[in-house]
Amino acid sequence: MPDSAPMNETAYARLEQRFRRLNALSEAQAVLHWDMSTVMPRGGHEARSEQLAELSAVHHGILTASETGDLVAAAEAEADSLDDWQRANLREIKRRVTKAMALTEDLVTRLSRASTTCEAVWREARADNDFKAVQPLVSTLLNLVREQAQMKSEALGLGLYDALLDDYEPGGRSAEIDVVFGELESFLPGFLGEVLDHQAKSPKVILPDGPFPEEKQKALGQRFMEMLGFDFHHGRLDVSLHPFCGGTPDDVRITTRYDDNDFTSALMGVLHETGHAMYERGLPKDWRGQPVGHALGMSVHESQSLLIEMQVCRSKTFLNFAAPIMVETFGGTGPAWDADNLFRLYTQVERSFIRVDADEVTYPAHVILRYRLEKALIEGDMEIADLPGAWNDGMERLLGIRPPTDTLGCLQDIHWYDGAWGYFPTYTLGAMTAAQLYAAARDQNPEIEPAIGRGDFAPLMAWLRENVHGKGSLVSAKELLISATGKPLDPKVFENHLRTRYLAG
Amino acid sequence: MPDSAPMNETAYARLEQRFRRLNALSEAQAVLHWDMSTVMPRGGHEARSEQLAELSAVHHGILTASETGDLVAAAEAEADSLDDWQRANLREIKRRVTKAMALTEDLVTRLSRASTTCEAVWREARADNDFKAVQPLVSTLLNLVREQAQMKSEALGLGLYDALLDDYEPGGRSAEIDVVFGELESFLPGFLGEVLDHQAKSPKVILPDGPFPEEKQKALGQRFMEMLGFDFHHGRLDVSLHPFCGGTPDDVRITTRYDDNDFTSALMGVLHETGHAMYERGLPKDWRGQPVGHALGMSVHESQSLLIEMQVCRSKTFLNFAAPIMVETFGGTGPAWDADNLFRLYTQVERSFIRVDADEVTYPAHVILRYRLEKALIEGDMEIADLPGAWNDGMERLLGIRPPTDTLGCLQDIHWYDGAWGYFPTYTLGAMTAAQLYAAARDQNPEIEPAIGRGDFAPLMAWLRENVHGKGSLVSAKELLISATGKPLDPKVFENHLRTRYLAG
Repeated sequence: MPDSAPMNETAYARLEQRFRRLNALSEAQAVLHWDMSTVMPRGGHEARSEQLAELSAVHHGILTASETGDLVAAAEAEADSLDDWQRANLREIKRRVTKAMALTEDLVTRLSRASTTCEAVWREARADNDFKAVQPLVSTLLNLVREQAQMKSEALGLGLYDALLDDYEPGGRSAEIDVVFGELESFLPGFLGEVLDHQAKSPKVILPDGPFPEEKQKALGQRFMEMLGFDFHHGRLDVSLHPFCGGTPDDVRITTRYDDNDFTSALMGVLHETGHAMYERGLPKDWRGQPVGHALGMSVHESQSLLIEMQVCRSKTFLNFAAPIMVETFGGTGPAWDADNLFRLYTQVERSFIRVDADEVTYPAHVILRYRLEKALIEGDMEIADLPGAWNDGMERLLGIRPPTDTLGCLQDIHWYDGAWGYFPTYTLGAMTAAQLYAAARDQNPEIEPAIGRGDFAPLMAWLRENVHGKGSLVSAKELLISATGKPLDPKVFENHLRTRYLAG
Repeated sequence: MPDSAPMNETAYARLEQRFRRLNALSEAQAVLHWDMSTVMPRGGHEARSEQLAELSAVHHGILTASETGDLVAAAEAEADSLDDWQRANLREIKRRVTKAMALTEDLVTRLSRASTTCEAVWREARADNDFKAVQPLVSTLLNLVREQAQMKSEALGLGLYDALLDDYEPGGRSAEIDVVFGELESFLPGFLGEVLDHQAKSPKVILPDGPFPEEKQKALGQRFMEMLGFDFHHGRLDVSLHPFCGGTPDDVRITTRYDDNDFTSALMGVLHETGHAMYERGLPKDWRGQPVGHALGMSVHESQSLLIEMQVCRSKTFLNFAAPIMVETFGGTGPAWDADNLFRLYTQVERSFIRVDADEVTYPAHVILRYRLEKALIEGDMEIADLPGAWNDGMERLLGIRPPTDTLGCLQDIHWYDGAWGYFPTYTLGAMTAAQLYAAARDQNPEIEPAIGRGDFAPLMAWLRENVHGKGSLVSAKELLISATGKPLDPKVFENHLRTRYLAG
């Protein structure tokens, strides 16, 4: 791989150049993934799988080339001449190189191919409620994931689960997650009972009557996106089966799915993904394309979507402002369109099967289930054949309901079938982080909430830019939280948020 | 770049593996290009430019790695053990390596960036009729193109123009083009006069009355695409400013643009691109991803789109069949919808400014103009500043009309602004090839034309699969034409086609 940098450049500068290339490759992969999820015809799957696998291999090849390692060593010797951002960038670069060195190119491409193939079959299996159809493929994939965990575990000196978790949550450790999840588990079941009792005594939720044409739903979503500051010159809103935020910081692509009979779900999904998108767009421009300019782990990413969706947009403050706009869009009349009813609708709690549709009170149970199952599967304490039964038993134990089908059970989420093992805990870590960040933001700038009541998100976004988005990966997620809120992750803040929202009033 | 192939594989087998990777990278670039032309928000342009440039650099790096050259040499030593397809593949591989070795990575990335940047500015300049806005960028780009021509010329022992032409038309030489174009030039001006006289005496063309809603136009296009054999499981139809056929053989993406007041242009555009798409889809499946499995040069590619559009779909035979379907789609009534009128409409000849809207009689003049101008520009006999004037003078000399604006003149085509220099002659070579192939096909299977009259394209497609599509790059364009039609490119066949269509009846 000849470098075109002049030889008198510093090792650090040449390393940056190399990582600009790696970033461009990752961005190309992100666009290919977006395309695959939104517009690609099904027959393109095999070729796409090859494209992604080969891009992964090329990426891995550059990361693990001996020149890259040599440049890292040489750049470390220059560390005194680097500023804070550069030093943090070098740290992030080294982390990526070390992780890549743990894996062979062969495993990387086999993992990529197995993921893309399994994911395609999973889509059919989920639609057909046919776990057996995908079982052999996900078993093969799990075996590769176990190999990956083993190699990373040895290279990084981490446990098998933590070795995978670290990809999504840098520095995250299952021992700490166990403590936090344990605290939630001791609080939530009793609290859930209280909330359900409380709701039983509240006015009944009235569903707004449809149909709600897709164009109008889309226009409404775009209107709120613009209010939040989403820049359509640098992004898109599209449709996909599984909503996500993809693309690149300068071309952020969010997706949703529309239901003609219910606009409320797609709308909140759009606001959620907009939270992700604003984080990507707000990353430090000077560090575009360098590891330090990337988002921190997935818990911070999820905190940004949940801060917008759960903390802000499901609040009475926002819904008081938003209700007349919804009425205007759909021409709604009657009590269903009152802000109070919409608030009750958007904060309705119930035991249900599908994670992505779950409310914020029952959501942690869905995550804890997946976390424990994937840990057992990765560590070899369980096999794929036992997954459907273990899933249903777990749902019964954690939420008191048993899924009648695997489509409503272990087939519902894309993650495992797409190779993302060790990801799930970040959802609930993100929910707690969101509560803690939003509480701190309102403390530090009392104007934030009243402004939202007028549809003005600028004060909130300014705070997030300064305290979260603009920091990229300069500091760790833990350090970021301490510097923004004065303390490490504290489940009590999340509990207080839930108590205030679901038991007061 | 570590190879994962076992060491006991042959050099040839390892080379194939390396080219599978290169193919996956090229396919990724094709998807990024499609995305950029259809759905990418404008603000994503800079990042996309980086992605494409870095992918080009990585591609170039693998092609020019010393291991690749070593494998080519070792594979040539094994040539006795290879079959015809493998030998042809090795020949194509070597051609690509030799060409890549002629260029530095630095020039490759600068060309890629300059092309993407210039193309973006050209879009605005064309809309604003502002040549000056894009002049500095296209000058810079031309200088890089000249560098490229110089390097390739030295490495390949070809003239400057031929060194670029060879990328689009392998084995194509400007000396031969001069002969063929000279013959056309001696025939066409007089012929054009005859045709215009003939048309003046024919019934006046009546335009069907619109509006023609986009959804209906799209449905009609899709219906004909399916008749032609286009498989939507492996392809898409979308909208872009500049219609094209992109994507990959297993995921062919064609585009068009719709005019509410005129359905005839978008429809014929769709049929044209479908001709390209059928070629891509018909390439030999066993050689997917290898150079020998790719399409031959652009003149053969264009012959496939023009065979479908010009030879078949603008014929009376097809329009007799298609007219009732158009009537059914749009609910048209009156003489405008008669097949005879539609045939006159679709074969109307006039002197006009825009190449892509030109009829097949005046089209060669547009190409000859561009060919001579780009040759002068590449060879340094002309500078970009002189382009608008030289363009307008040339139009006056060749077609007797002078463009009133640069938007209708030298700003109309994307090619030069996107870095595609040496491409234009392939359009007219393609038109002549199309005439010759279709004449041979009808001679060899007299069922082809009557079947088309019933909307049955299977006999035609079977002939094209056997004689063109399925051959990939096994033989050269010249050899392919001789084996399919019994003789090399013969402008007389094209002239006969024009005489029959435009002066008879």
